[in-house]
Amino acid sequence: MDHRLSFVTVATRDLDAARTFYRDAFGWSPHLDVPGEIVFYQVAPGLLLGFFDTASFDRDLGVPPGTTTGPAGMTLAHNVGDRDEVHALATAMAAAGGTVLKPPQEGEFGGVFHALVRDPNGVLWEVAHNPSWRITDDGTVELG
Amino acid sequence: MDHRLSFVTVATRDLDAARTFYRDAFGWSPHLDVPGEIVFYQVAPGLLLGFFDTASFDRDLGVPPGTTTGPAGMTLAHNVGDRDEVHALATAMAAAGGTVLKPPQEGEFGGVFHALVRDPNGVLWEVAHNPSWRITDDGTVELG
Repeated sequence: MDHRLSFVTVATRDLDAARTFYRDAFGWSPHLDVPGEIVFYQVAPGLLLGFFDTASFDRDLGVPPGTTTGPAGMTLAHNVGDRDEVHALATAMAAAGGTVLKPPQEGEFGGVFHALVRDPNGVLWEVAHNPSWRITDDGTVELG
Repeated sequence: MDHRLSFVTVATRDLDAARTFYRDAFGWSPHLDVPGEIVFYQVAPGLLLGFFDTASFDRDLGVPPGTTTGPAGMTLAHNVGDRDEVHALATAMAAAGGTVLKPPQEGEFGGVFHALVRDPNGVLWEVAHNPSWRITDDGTVELG
């Protein structure tokens, strides 16, 4: 079985906030944008992050509308090149409407330096500089 | 800003169930496995899926232990090569302890054929064959 995660989909109550936040904080352009329905951003090679309104999300799940209140219990992590970039991106995310839950600081494990920021729809992001993280030519992640 | 999602972290109540499910359903081997603490699987080039117990997840968030009950409001999608593979993987996920929420069927949009399966810890997976999904040599996703 290939290792082929291709999509991360988020139940959102405010598509406009999602559109604005990722444009302003990360400087990304939507990969696909259907106002009132969906916004997709490409977040890694071969991987899209998609925002759907909660009504669509619940219909897809086969649960009553309003069952899903928002994302919880999952964190997306974005690695950057150095500690200054952690500070810069956390600041940009706050300016774009995010909430800083943990200001940039040393992590508990593995020499990581990171911040934790919640986006306007509740998506948790870790912004990290991790010197022990490497990706080989074939895409394999090496840690340590 | 690069498009560099590197980690998806899930709050879990049962690390052993996570370890077993991904091994048996997808045939993956853990990328890093610290019994009682974490299990990481590589899910795409340069991308790890990590399971942390909810206590660690909550400590990291700075909320009281037990606040996070599990993942919600996010779906991970795994693309496969054809419709038979959608059936085969959904069947394997159910045999490995997953719950099929939507059996393999035509999707509403874009010619996708998909199933929706919940893992033992509540992670939602879409297993999809999407003929309009392409990844170019530089990693850009093309749809349609």
